[in-house]
Amino acid sequence: MLFQVEMTVDIPLDFDKAEAERIKAVEKAYSHELQRSGEWRHIWRVAGQYANLSIFDVASNERLHEILMGLPLYPFMTIKVTPLCRHPSSIRDDDR
Amino acid sequence: MLFQVEMTVDIPLDFDKAEAERIKAVEKAYSHELQRSGEWRHIWRVAGQYANLSIFDVASNERLHEILMGLPLYPFMTIKVTPLCRHPSSIRDDDR
Amino acid sequence: MLFQVEMTVDIPLDFDKAEAERIKAVEKAYSHELQRSGEWRHIWRVAGQYANLSIFDVASNERLHEILMGLPLYPFMTIKVTPLCRHPSSIRDDDR
Amino acid sequence: MLFQVEMTVDIPLDFDKAEAERIKAVEKAYSHELQRSGEWRHIWRVAGQYANLSIFDVASNERLHEILMGLPLYPFMTIKVTPLCRHPSSIRDDDR
Amino acid sequence: MLFQVEMTVDIPLDFDKAEAERIKAVEKAYSHELQRSGEWRHIWRVAGQYANLSIFDVASNERLHEILMGLPLYPFMTIKVTPLCRHPSSIRDDDR
Amino acid sequence: MLFQVEMTVDIPLDFDKAEAERIKAVEKAYSHELQRSGEWRHIWRVAGQYANLSIFDVASNERLHEILMGLPLYPFMTIKVTPLCRHPSSIRDDDR
Amino acid sequence: MLFQVEMTVDIPLDFDKAEAERIKAVEKAYSHELQRSGEWRHIWRVAGQYANLSIFDVASNERLHEILMGLPLYPFMTIKVTPLCRHPSSIRDDDR
Amino acid sequence: MLFQVEMTVDIPLDFDKAEAERIKAVEKAYSHELQRSGEWRHIWRVAGQYANLSIFDVASNERLHEILMGLPLYPFMTIKVTPLCRHPSSIRDDDR
Amino acid sequence: MLFQVEMTVDIPLDFDKAEAERIKAVEKAYSHELQRSGEWRHIWRVAGQYANLSIFDVASNERLHEILMGLPLYPFMTIKVTPLCRHPSSIRDDDR
Amino acid sequence: MLFQVEMTVDIPLDFDKAEAERIKAVEKAYSHELQRSGEWRHIWRVAGQYANLSIFDVASNERLHEILMGLPLYPFMTIKVTPLCRHPSSIRDDDR
Repeated sequence: MLFQVEMTVDIPLDFDKAEAERIKAVEKAYSHELQRSGEWRHIWRVAGQYANLSIFDVASNERLHEILMGLPLYPFMTIKVTPLCRHPSSIRDDDR
Repeated sequence: MLFQVEMTVDIPLDFDKAEAERIKAVEKAYSHELQRSGEWRHIWRVAGQYANLSIFDVASNERLHEILMGLPLYPFMTIKVTPLCRHPSSIRDDDR
Repeated sequence: MLFQVEMTVDIPLDFDKAEAERIKAVEKAYSHELQRSGEWRHIWRVAGQYANLSIFDVASNERLHEILMGLPLYPFMTIKVTPLCRHPSSIRDDDR
Repeated sequence: MLFQVEMTVDIPLDFDKAEAERIKAVEKAYSHELQRSGEWRHIWRVAGQYANLSIFDVASNERLHEILMGLPLYPFMTIKVTPLCRHPSSIRDDDR
Repeated sequence: MLFQVEMTVDIPLDFDKAEAERIKAVEKAYSHELQRSGEWRHIWRVAGQYANLSIFDVASNERLHEILMGLPLYPFMTIKVTPLCRHPSSIRDDDR
Repeated sequence: MLFQVEMTVDIPLDFDKAEAERIKAVEKAYSHELQRSGEWRHIWRVAGQYANLSIFDVASNERLHEILMGLPLYPFMTIKVTPLCRHPSSIRDDDR
Repeated sequence: MLFQVEMTVDIPLDFDKAEAERIKAVEKAYSHELQRSGEWRHIWRVAGQYANLSIFDVASNERLHEILMGLPLYPFMTIKVTPLCRHPSSIRDDDR
Repeated sequence: MLFQVEMTVDIPLDFDKAEAERIKAVEKAYSHELQRSGEWRHIWRVAGQYANLSIFDVASNERLHEILMGLPLYPFMTIKVTPLCRHPSSIRDDDR
Repeated sequence: MLFQVEMTVDIPLDFDKAEAERIKAVEKAYSHELQRSGEWRHIWRVAGQYANLSIFDVASNERLHEILMGLPLYPFMTIKVTPLCRHPSSIRDDDR
Repeated sequence: MLFQVEMTVDIPLDFDKAEAERIKAVEKAYSHELQRSGEWRHIWRVAGQYANLSIFDVASNERLHEILMGLPLYPFMTIKVTPLCRHPSSIRDDDR
């Protein structure tokens, strides 16, 4: 099942820089693994913002929740979830 | 260049049903052509809404504007445009 | 999978009264059938509003979309969809 | 009487982790007791958010207030209360 | 139980004037009866608006819903309901 | 003259508990005095919120401002003021 | 007592032009009379909008309500009322 | 040229009290001077808020900006600027 | 003096097409004249919207108001006005 | 390609003053260089706000993102990006 997730990251100014970089690196690895598994289908950067638009393809709401709560940067995030379906006009076979 | 476009359609209750169906058919053909050209990369339905989330891959803002203004259903639409970039964590070669 | 759906109904003042009653009756039958199937698990009235809060238990986003688009009163509705999961503190076995 | 309550929890980044876990454990026990009593009828997790949607079945507004103010996590919560009624289309006897 | 209800009335410009006056008169009688019964405890006019702030004292959410849906002007109203309780600092015996 | 005032209180988590209780006690006494004088006509608790809905009956905007600025909890408050008038449908003599 | 009132006028496109001009003329005379009486102390045009910012100096909320409801253009208006007081830093004697 | 400026002041709870009073005194003198010059034509207190509504009469946008940025309390302010013009219905010669 | 003006145009579906085209042509001529005079310094199209972002360079708020109220499409517009100044970092001599 | 970017700066009260000035100086140099390159076409100050309205002329969304993320004051900014196109009514050759 498809979900769009908008993630806006806001790391406090006085947060430890090294620790922030460490968390970002763990986040990147976490994302890569999920992209390879196919659950994290797309991730784009929103121009001008420390935010991304992602498309997830997961088995259930629970799995989506599990993935999002597992994001290392989750504590710094504002998240908006939009459930999606295949569009009747889509010509792409694999866009579910 | 990538843009996310949210299109919410609101056809007045008293709008002529046959004409609405005609416009929708033209819209579908219009969308298929742009999907085949690759400019309309993704289109998903928002669950529970007469709305879609689309990803466009176009040469310029002008081209995006031209496409959107050319939508047969444009007069019935509320549109939100978000410029996107390739995300540094994306592992997909073709996600621009 | 669980979804909360908030449905607010706004029937224009000048809409034909008899036709409105007819649609409402069809809506009620439609809802009863889905409640009996278990997909429409709960429906409550929002006090003071022509609106309801419902909990759906469906197999997929697509099924939810299909159900909502099939609502006879859909053209008069503003809909908000919130994907839910089982809560770790829930003691009810059947609250998914 | 039925109320929907949306509880969004926001624990500051620099809040003591151990103390937060302690409070969460007390909250869970508090919730279990009220669920067993039937006053806290449903609790679902909002996918992607540290938030829940709950349905309370209480004798009065006062009792609802008392329960919510007694939530150990209350100081970290943003709360939205919606009074509900039985829906005329509900086929469930026990949905009040 | 106490509820604050904000009622904002918006009668379309082209609505039949005589019919509007008729409905307003029925509304006034309806309100008087409920005020005499004590269920409609207070009604104040919002300065500069065709709106009122009312305090209802009713047995249940259902009764509140029944009263509000029964308002002759309901079809022209936007309504906001806020559940209230007795305040611990209130010195008035009869403010529930 | 009548005003509705909505007061939402937000005391920071790390604010000294004892000092907060002291201020609340002074606030209660302050409120009682104004209720006895008749200027603070009604105070109700908003169910589920650390907020109240109050009705003030004061000689002028200045007096209202003076009262509100004098609230011991004022520094922790978000305040919304709505000027009211007697409603033409009110049957209560003393609702101004 | 002082009030700021923001009045935004929205006359439907298909409203009879002659009748609109007639109402505007009556509005202007109505405003002049109240300005001469001193109750309508200031009226400024908001640049780029069919709206004005006015300062009223009236004896009570009731009087303000009476004036605003008496505006010939009232049915076309969205109104926002803000109660004001004399500012402690004001050096103008007559700014109340 | 006329501008309405809404200034809402929010001084953090833990800000040094003496320093706050010092800044307020400087602000008052600053305001008096501009009122005497005629640039700061009106200042009213918003009832119930630590905010004011002011009318400025300045030569240009630059001058307005210079004045506002020079406000000693500027760092604690949320400011909204609305450009005004003389209203065609104004009977006051000096309301520009 | 510089102002940014955002103009969003919304022509009703059932508005006479020929008349709309006529008004648009008059609007274009009106805009060209003001661009040649230098008062309408910039006009850009907002991608995906029937809206423009314009920069005006006018002698006063009154002149801005006069220009905007004179727009043939004004009755179909939602307008937002933001007063601007020269930026201290601007290296362009003619950006005022 | 043209983008409008609204940048609102909010430097915490307790941020080191000298460091803030240093960052502002670097920001000014950064802006000057981009203005000279033509990518940062316009920058205006919003009257009364620590904010600017800028027009960027860049090759792609990526380049815009790169520029904005490179702003020394970025961590203190709230940014809104609006993609623009040449307007069909523009008479300026160089307004793209």
